[in-house]
Amino acid sequence: MEPHFERVTIIGAGLLGASLGLALKARGLADYIVGVGRRPASLDAALRVGAVDSVSMDARAAAEGADLIVICTPAALVERQLDEVRPVCSAQAVVTDVASTKQAVCGHAARTWPSPRRFVGSHPMAGSEKFGPEHGRADLYENSVCLVESGAGLDEEARQRVAALWTAVGATVFEIDPARHDALLARTSHIPHVLAAGIATLAARHGDVRRMIGQGYRDMTRIAASRPEVWRDICLTNRNAMLDGIREFQEYLAAFARAIEEGDAGALDALFSEANRARRATVDE
Amino acid sequence: MEPHFERVTIIGAGLLGASLGLALKARGLADYIVGVGRRPASLDAALRVGAVDSVSMDARAAAEGADLIVICTPAALVERQLDEVRPVCSAQAVVTDVASTKQAVCGHAARTWPSPRRFVGSHPMAGSEKFGPEHGRADLYENSVCLVESGAGLDEEARQRVAALWTAVGATVFEIDPARHDALLARTSHIPHVLAAGIATLAARHGDVRRMIGQGYRDMTRIAASRPEVWRDICLTNRNAMLDGIREFQEYLAAFARAIEEGDAGALDALFSEANRARRATVDE
Repeated sequence: MEPHFERVTIIGAGLLGASLGLALKARGLADYIVGVGRRPASLDAALRVGAVDSVSMDARAAAEGADLIVICTPAALVERQLDEVRPVCSAQAVVTDVASTKQAVCGHAARTWPSPRRFVGSHPMAGSEKFGPEHGRADLYENSVCLVESGAGLDEEARQRVAALWTAVGATVFEIDPARHDALLARTSHIPHVLAAGIATLAARHGDVRRMIGQGYRDMTRIAASRPEVWRDICLTNRNAMLDGIREFQEYLAAFARAIEEGDAGALDALFSEANRARRATVDE
Repeated sequence: MEPHFERVTIIGAGLLGASLGLALKARGLADYIVGVGRRPASLDAALRVGAVDSVSMDARAAAEGADLIVICTPAALVERQLDEVRPVCSAQAVVTDVASTKQAVCGHAARTWPSPRRFVGSHPMAGSEKFGPEHGRADLYENSVCLVESGAGLDEEARQRVAALWTAVGATVFEIDPARHDALLARTSHIPHVLAAGIATLAARHGDVRRMIGQGYRDMTRIAASRPEVWRDICLTNRNAMLDGIREFQEYLAAFARAIEEGDAGALDALFSEANRARRATVDE
């Protein structure tokens, strides 16, 4: 069943927050939406595109009386926003976020939130290199995947309501434990961002390569154009999985270098063949 | 001025060879094209799609009397084909190849070919994950870049004729020294392939990630679906640049890991910001 919210507070009026506001309004899922931000220009833009009904620079005041609070700030600021709104949340309020790393945020909530917990972490896997409320789209979450926190200590009704929220705006919801989320996302998204950064950086350091790039380079460096502060925060909030994953990658590269150094055609065949199978096993295309 | 060839021999009837045959025919640039291969099924397919006028399994016989010979075999087989056709090349014949690495092939030709050399290496940066003559397309080289060997010892008329060939089928030609070609391509293409392989391999080894992949993973692993034997050969024929480039990448990852380990937000900002600028400096989009 479609969820309905009387008063929604969206903290952080960027691409994800504004798109959520637009999606809720387009589907008639919310009566009134307040947008909270720190920059008046962003708040004005969120109002102008119709993502929110009013704006505020005071998260705590805006969260009072809300039955849904969605924290859409960068990952590193979510914990502070949780502390800010927790004292004013009503017993009926459901709270979630959109950060790309979940262990830090959900761990903080687990330590500080009343039990059973009505903050349930989310990671909608949507977005683009564009940012800011002016790029908000009511269909941003359509056909996307949203990973929603699972585990002990959560209020079951709140968990279902958060899942219903994302389903209602078009996402397919999967439940996942925060630690496993961060370990897997490090491999599928966070470390690939570091690698994309490395490809672009080392190519540019090497000389003028503009004439020598093909589609592979374009595809593999596209996400290097993402916002530095977003990925800085993701690295900082997913520290252990990032360090483990980078170590794995270093070992993988060492095996490749060894095969090349020794001219070992069989080993190279095996490495590329495993990759070929792995690509097919992980992507339905 | 458009070049014209009376008799073209294309050795290797795969995607690149068949597409070249189709492109020459579509533009009326060749009177007669012979396709050479080792597998009857591929030769039949090349004939069927109209990429060649006749087929042969004997490269030497097919090359005799040709005024253009294009070696379209995998990189590791080009040197052998050069040895095969060299004794029968007429004084007027122009010879080129399409291998993605150039130092091994061009170095071999420099050591074995009569001077001034009428073998001039090419690297048309076109193709796809598809392969085989049945995927050949007359427009494969349109709007692509083709890197053509430059340097001492080349026959100037042959060099111009090879450049004119690729220009005539729609490519933009840039000249480049083979050593510099391999060093740059290692950074823009060959090492990115190894990294794409690593992303897919390590993600699949880590567990079932199918539900947790986004557009970044799709883009960054697309080339992991390439043919293992092609990339094995590229690694083997671009050994030194690959080893240097992988070592650079290891150092880059170590710097990233250090910044994460130390929680150094400033260092992470600087790394991602440099990548952002590097992406914009290397890709016109």
